[in-house]
Amino acid sequence: MDAIDLSIDTDLVHKILTGFIHDELARAGYSRAVINVSGGLDSAVALFLAADALKPLNVLAIRLPYKSSSGDSLEHAQKLIDQVGCPSITIPITDTVDALIDQKSGISPVRKGNLMARVRMIVAYDQSEAFKGLVIGTGNKTEILLGYTTLYGDSACALNPIGDLYKTQIRQLASALNIPGPIIAKPPSADLWAGQTDEGELGFTYEDVDKLLYLLVDQRFHPQECIDAGFDKEFVHSVIERIRKNQYKRLMSPIAKLSNRTVGYDFLYLRDWGT
Amino acid sequence: MDAIDLSIDTDLVHKILTGFIHDELARAGYSRAVINVSGGLDSAVALFLAADALKPLNVLAIRLPYKSSSGDSLEHAQKLIDQVGCPSITIPITDTVDALIDQKSGISPVRKGNLMARVRMIVAYDQSEAFKGLVIGTGNKTEILLGYTTLYGDSACALNPIGDLYKTQIRQLASALNIPGPIIAKPPSADLWAGQTDEGELGFTYEDVDKLLYLLVDQRFHPQECIDAGFDKEFVHSVIERIRKNQYKRLMSPIAKLSNRTVGYDFLYLRDWGT
Repeated sequence: MDAIDLSIDTDLVHKILTGFIHDELARAGYSRAVINVSGGLDSAVALFLAADALKPLNVLAIRLPYKSSSGDSLEHAQKLIDQVGCPSITIPITDTVDALIDQKSGISPVRKGNLMARVRMIVAYDQSEAFKGLVIGTGNKTEILLGYTTLYGDSACALNPIGDLYKTQIRQLASALNIPGPIIAKPPSADLWAGQTDEGELGFTYEDVDKLLYLLVDQRFHPQECIDAGFDKEFVHSVIERIRKNQYKRLMSPIAKLSNRTVGYDFLYLRDWGT
Repeated sequence: MDAIDLSIDTDLVHKILTGFIHDELARAGYSRAVINVSGGLDSAVALFLAADALKPLNVLAIRLPYKSSSGDSLEHAQKLIDQVGCPSITIPITDTVDALIDQKSGISPVRKGNLMARVRMIVAYDQSEAFKGLVIGTGNKTEILLGYTTLYGDSACALNPIGDLYKTQIRQLASALNIPGPIIAKPPSADLWAGQTDEGELGFTYEDVDKLLYLLVDQRFHPQECIDAGFDKEFVHSVIERIRKNQYKRLMSPIAKLSNRTVGYDFLYLRDWGT
């Protein structure tokens, strides 16, 4: 397990990802971007990459605090915005989220967390329209594979530069980008309720799960091979189950097929379409 | 043009679509569904199909009026709910939407419409969690191809039974399902602002555009062949341009590729995954 090496060439990755951001935007006719900056590491890395790709003035950083959001999150987001030198806007989401909650009794933390993530999506897309910039996604490969995201919430974006990097690889890139140490070192959290941490909620560390995911997904190891490599059997099977169970979040919703050309099946690519 | 026949076998279509709803839900481990019922035709058809597929008690109809919504819409939705005999819930979205709008000055009707469509998505997904039912989509083939939808708004769903039927085909199915005549006959509208109609906003009728889309998409006609068949040249090219421009709404957002297995490129299907 210790031998599994997830280290990346941060210079090369930086070059590929800034090129991706620039080119995907240009292809869609855009030169500006908007990003929800939570104060956490993933959105910090996405912000720095977008600023390098497009110049800081073309990137709008959005801060969306809820009344229970940690003060540190808001402060860290500001620190990142100051370091990048991009325009920013702060829009509290408390009234909007609470208008959705008040109508119900005994809403669960998961439902509340999903409401918050989706309200943040709405504001990002509204600002996208106002700023004429595309929404940059901030989901990493670990959370996308585990399905540790809110569908149509934090996972919603026009393009995602960091979705093929595991969380531990995001940390490597963050160091190379000179993101402040305290932001790299703090425990990852969706900050949807006080005391929430990713690793507490998931029940394992990113260090461990990233290595397992790398073997399962990138190296196409059989579960038994992962166990032979030193991973706990229960852990291996629970991670596989999470990947399976959340497959729907990584696909377009199915449409019932009736005709000979159905969106998502045989009407997929503009290049298929001889016009 | 008059010779273009979009008629469907409504019995066969009903059988296929109720089977699709039942089987897709079962595959995901569900037997219940939730649907935003606007009072319009598409959601009416989706509601009737879901009730036939799952039994009415397993379908939750949601009414989500905004202060400017037409009273007719709310009343038509109730009529449909009564006819189907399914449980329903009415949640006004005015406070939530207005909390998002108040923070800005001079918001455009398009931005406001998108806010409303996305708040409706949030409520549907929240009710999905509470009712333990999947969100049934209500977008038709015409609007999906034209991109006449709000991304992460009305287009968001777990499964869409009617997305391969053109609007004029939805009308045929609605008649066969005994949906009340006034609901079939009224001008289609997203009801996002007073007086809005789809055909007024699009600048053409569903009757015309459905035939053109059928030639272009299903029959793979070249644009010139459509013009030769009697369609106006400008009309043909503006529709093609709409399809092209909105392609992004029919695809997953791109992730920058760095590894040998990237979500959306080479990590696509569970069947690819030898576990």
